[in-house]
This record gives sequence, C-alpha cells and structure tokens, in this order.
Amino acid sequence: MNDRYQRGYNKLNELEPNGAEGLMEAFADVCPDLAKYTIEYPFGDVLQRDGLDFKTRELVTIGALTAMGNCQPQLHGHIVGALNLGCSEKEISEVILQMSVYAGFPAAINGMTVAKAAFAEFRNKQEAQ
Amino acid sequence: MNDRYQRGYNKLNELEPNGAEGLMEAFADVCPDLAKYTIEYPFGDVLQRDGLDFKTRELVTIGALTAMGNCQPQLHGHIVGALNLGCSEKEISEVILQMSVYAGFPAAINGMTVAKAAFAEFRNKQEAQ
Amino acid sequence: MNDRYQRGYNKLNELEPNGAEGLMEAFADVCPDLAKYTIEYPFGDVLQRDGLDFKTRELVTIGALTAMGNCQPQLHGHIVGALNLGCSEKEISEVILQMSVYAGFPAAINGMTVAKAAFAEFRNKQEAQ
Amino acid sequence: MNDRYQRGYNKLNELEPNGAEGLMEAFADVCPDLAKYTIEYPFGDVLQRDGLDFKTRELVTIGALTAMGNCQPQLHGHIVGALNLGCSEKEISEVILQMSVYAGFPAAINGMTVAKAAFAEFRNKQEAQ
Amino acid sequence: MNDRYQRGYNKLNELEPNGAEGLMEAFADVCPDLAKYTIEYPFGDVLQRDGLDFKTRELVTIGALTAMGNCQPQLHGHIVGALNLGCSEKEISEVILQMSVYAGFPAAINGMTVAKAAFAEFRNKQEAQ
Amino acid sequence: MNDRYQRGYNKLNELEPNGAEGLMEAFADVCPDLAKYTIEYPFGDVLQRDGLDFKTRELVTIGALTAMGNCQPQLHGHIVGALNLGCSEKEISEVILQMSVYAGFPAAINGMTVAKAAFAEFRNKQEAQ
Repeated sequence: MNDRYQRGYNKLNELEPNGAEGLMEAFADVCPDLAKYTIEYPFGDVLQRDGLDFKTRELVTIGALTAMGNCQPQLHGHIVGALNLGCSEKEISEVILQMSVYAGFPAAINGMTVAKAAFAEFRNKQEAQ
Repeated sequence: MNDRYQRGYNKLNELEPNGAEGLMEAFADVCPDLAKYTIEYPFGDVLQRDGLDFKTRELVTIGALTAMGNCQPQLHGHIVGALNLGCSEKEISEVILQMSVYAGFPAAINGMTVAKAAFAEFRNKQEAQ
Repeated sequence: MNDRYQRGYNKLNELEPNGAEGLMEAFADVCPDLAKYTIEYPFGDVLQRDGLDFKTRELVTIGALTAMGNCQPQLHGHIVGALNLGCSEKEISEVILQMSVYAGFPAAINGMTVAKAAFAEFRNKQEAQ
Repeated sequence: MNDRYQRGYNKLNELEPNGAEGLMEAFADVCPDLAKYTIEYPFGDVLQRDGLDFKTRELVTIGALTAMGNCQPQLHGHIVGALNLGCSEKEISEVILQMSVYAGFPAAINGMTVAKAAFAEFRNKQEAQ
Repeated sequence: MNDRYQRGYNKLNELEPNGAEGLMEAFADVCPDLAKYTIEYPFGDVLQRDGLDFKTRELVTIGALTAMGNCQPQLHGHIVGALNLGCSEKEISEVILQMSVYAGFPAAINGMTVAKAAFAEFRNKQEAQ
Repeated sequence: MNDRYQRGYNKLNELEPNGAEGLMEAFADVCPDLAKYTIEYPFGDVLQRDGLDFKTRELVTIGALTAMGNCQPQLHGHIVGALNLGCSEKEISEVILQMSVYAGFPAAINGMTVAKAAFAEFRNKQEAQ
C-alpha cells in the first residue's frame, strides 16, 4: 500500500474507529477502488493538509453537507467524527442552524434531525465505556 | 427600526463597509423587505450568536456556498468579508479546495476562480489605502 | 414571547394542528432556537405577508420542494397543510406534475409519491372524524 | 406539424411574443428537436392543462426556478411571461421573497436581482408602446 | 392510445419487465397523466432516438442520477435496467466511481450503495430463473 | 513530479491541448495544489481506468454536468474535449437533450446553449488549421 493510502487510513480511523475497514468491506465486491480512492484523496491528501485545523475542517464539511441536503449518511458520519475530535454539540448545531440562511430552513431542519440522532449515538457510546 | 435590524446592519457592515446601505438600495424599488429581512435574520439573529466565532462562521459559509455552486455573488462577498475579518487567503483557499471532496472538482475550481478575483480586489483596496 | 413568535405559532398551527408544539419539542434538547427561528421567520414574517394568498403560497412551496427534491419531510408537511387550507388534490398534483418540466421526471415522480401518501393520510384523518 | 406542437407554439407565444420562433431559431443548427420537444411537452401538454390557472402555474414556476438557482435565463423569461399574463410585480416578488425560507437568502437575492431587470425590461416595453 | 405511448410502453418494459404497468398502477388514483407523460416523453420520444445506443444512454442516465444524488429510486431502476440491456457491473460501477470527480465522493458512495443493492437483486433474479 | 501527475498531465492535454499548463497557471498564485490534485485524481487516476472507453466517459460527464447545471465552464471544456476525442456533435447533443428528462428542460436548454458555442469554437479551430 502506498503512503497516501496509509496516511488516509489512519486519518479516517481518527474520525471513526474502524471507519477505513468498514469502508473497504462495504465496497469489496462492487468497486474496491472507490473505497481506496476515498481513503487516498479525501483522507490521505486533503484532510492531511496544513493551514486549517482538523476540527474546523469538520465543521466546514458539516455545513456543506447540511446545505447540499442529499448526503445524510455522510453528514451523520462527520457529525460523529467531529464529536470524536472534540467538537462540542453546540459548535455543530450552530453550524447547522447557520445553514438555514444559506440553504433554507428545510435543509437546516433535516440536518439538525441527523445531528440529534448522531448526538444520541455518541452519548450512548460514551456511557457504554 | 427594531433592534434586530440595527444589530444586523452593524454586523453586515463589519463584513463589508456600507454593505447594508448597498443591499437596501439594491432592492429599494423592487422588494425592500427582502433587504430588511436579510439584515434582520442572517445578520441580526444568526451571525450574532455565541458558540462559534465570526471567522469560523465565515469559513463555514464559504464552504457551503462553494459546494452549492450557484451563489457566486454571495461567495465573492463572503470571501472579501472573511478577509476583512482577518481570515488569511490560505484558510479560505483550504476551505474551497476541501470542497473538491464533498461537491466535486468543478465546484472547487469555480469557487477558487471566485476567490482569485476576490483576493485581488482585496489586495488592491489594501494597497490603495 | 415576542409578537413574531406568537403570530408564527398560530400560522404554523393553521397549517398543521399542533405543528408548532411538535417542532419545539423535536429540537428542545438539541437546538431550540432553530425551532424558534422557524416559527418566527417563515411563519411569523413571510407567510403573514399580503400580496399573495396563503393557498397560492403553499402551492408555490410545494412546487419548489418538489423541484429541490431533497426535502421530502417538508414536502409531506406542506401537502397536508395545503389540504388543510382547502387546496384540492387536483391543484396539488398539477403543481407536482408541472415540475417534470422544470426539474425532471424523477423529481416529479418522487414528489407525487410523497403526495400519494399525504393524500391518503389526510383522507384517513377526515374519515376518522 | 402535430396538434401538440401547434398548441404549444401558441401557448409559448402567449407568454412571450415570438418566443416559439426564437426558440426554434436558437437551436436550428444544433438540435432542433430540443426546441420542438420544449414546445410540445411543457407548452403543448403541461401548461395546457386544467386544474390550475396559467397565472398560478407561472408563479409556481418562478418559485421553483428561484429555488433551483441555476436557470437564470428561464427565470427571466418566466417573470416577463407572468407580467405579460397580468401577474403583478408584487405577486412575483412575494414568490421570490418566500424562497428565502425554502432555498436560502442567496437564492432569493439572486432571483430578485433577475426580477429587478425583468421588471425594468417590461416597463420599458410598456412605455415604448 | 397514441403511438408515442405505445412505443414508450414497450421501451420501458424493455428496461424493466412490467415497468410500464407498475408505473401506471402507482399513480392511477393520484395523477395517471404523470405516468402517461413519463411513458410518452422519456420512453416514447427521447429514448427512441437514433444517434446514441440505448446502453450508452443508460450509462449517461446512471451518471446524471448519481451526480444529482436525490433520485435514488430512479437510479436503482436504471441500474437494473442497464443490466437487463446487457451493460456489465463493471461499466456501471465505473460510471458511478467517475462521479466522485464531478459531484463529490458522497454522491459516488451513495450511488455505489444503490448499485450494490441493484446488482444483488439482479443476480438473485438471474439465479432464480 | 509523481507518476499520477505525469499520467494526468498527458490525459488532460489529450482532451484539450495545453489544458494542463493552463490549469496550473490559473491557480499558480492562489492554490497550486488544487490544479495539481485535479491533474492527479480525475485525470491521473479516474480517467485512466479500464472498463469504459474515454469517449463514453466524456459523454457521461457531459450528461452529469448538464444535469447539475452549475458548472458551465467545465461543461464547455468537456464538450470541446469530447469533440477532440472524436465524439460527434450528434452524440453530444443527444446526451444533452436526454437530460431534459432527468433534470428538466431548463438544464437541457442551458446545456445546449453551451454546446452551440463549443461546437462553433471547435469548427472555427478546425477551419483555421
């Protein structure tokens, strides 16, 4: 495996424990290269970069996915990931609320519904430990 | 004028000198309430809130507008606004670059083209002072 | 509570009985201000306005949500709301059908699928009374 | 020419004098069937239908195109068309303002900018007569 | 029934056995004309045309629906349809993977998740015969 | 420079002579890595792949960009690129026309307007040689 893949693998797992393994398995029999490229480019190239800290990057991603409104599984994943990195529920819900301005109230409400479930999932995991 | 309007007026002008006046004039003979509501809700309610600093809010907005890809005038305005608040060109271009992952390369390239023009405009104004 | 909130609360409940209470509860522990803002701005400011009757406003909203295609819960709510206001199934399905022209056949078909379920729900409620 | 084409031709010209001729010429050497289909399906089938009057249909279309945000030429055409049918500037600007709720403030502002130009064009034509 | 309808009916059933009947039934009591128009225009006019073979047309549609990201039922249907026409899983997954470039990784990942289910459904049907 | 970059550089120039140089120059002083990544991932990884020929890949991209409707510069570039690869005007206009079904008539009309200009540019270059 190349360096980009290895770096990306670790980065994705920082966001979600065993996230990289899960992604590789999900597409193993359909298109393993989509999983490989996802690890290499977003996680191995882009999210490795200097100039913006990982937490801010996650908040930006949560805003964009809320605004786009058609990537709910990824929005869920990045909200849990942001919590794992130490972002507060308040920071995340402020980002989503702000999207009511730029993408409309339905996008913000649907994003907050995803956040509500992700927050609950995260709290349950915390309590289980 | 109510408090929300007054607060929003000042907030918008913090982002872009005379921005509020410009917005009010632009729609004065078509729909002045759209300008009024824009000052009241986004700038008077949302961008006033605690829990996330104004610079991070602007970076989140730049990401979302880049991802949506159909709001180039607003993207231009928020990039100049972010520079006015003290965001660096590097922080802004990192946000836009990151959108290649979530919204595709055309969205990122078109966003960066807007940024290039906004950066030049900002530098010209700085030098003119 | 301010006037905008009170007006919006009543307006939302005109569309959907107990809709305002439901919205406030849904986000009570995540971001109550998103519910508050939704009641204040869309329902307390915009949908209060003169110049266009409430039924036409709902048909316009149904068209836009069908075209956007990523706000199915809101589309469902506004279809039931339009029926509550006295719009006919025919008017609503004409709006959705028309979106095949502007947003494509998949958007229209997915919107009509939402309408089919909303119509059935509304009829069941009518019969239950 | 078939009936649908003939009906659609007349309907489009009701919205915009010589609109059908203009559309046919625009694509005559690239893809004349796109112009033909546009006349047949949207104007010959859909906009002919009962159950919703032509003015309401145009307001719905203006709302949807504002919300989609990436069809400015069509938005311009339908605003002029709606004025030709007797819709008031007030009705049209109310529809566009309302889209701030469902698609965000940038979409509404960009739509209103198109409306401002379309209103001016329409007034100029009126005065020239 | 007119010629366009009859041609479209056969074309849709070529993609999905009994697809036309299913579509007609789905909207029989809500808006039968949406089903009729879907059979007439997309299947009776557009997909009948020369200049591009049916398999390439399906791959183009799969790419567009993946990129749009909000038409998952239609994406599923067209993937099964493309397999019925003789497209390979490889061709389809290459199209979806390619959309990571133009519409972002979430769109490609969500499209591939639909493909995974559609491929399984198709294989199960093949084995059942 | 790494292999992916070199392969991508050649691939992009196959589509558009000096395209890679132009892209590198465009972002040299803003974000050179966006140009580098564009060359590496889309052109160095994805468009290199087996399983789908380059011409079909370009037609798929033209369909997706037409449907998305907010990437006109990229749509123009890929249409000229497809012509350079030997796609016919007919094949390209069939793809764009087909998008009227999936993304609506405005998207198809706006895409065809881009194609009309791209076809003219390509013919002019051909004649100039």
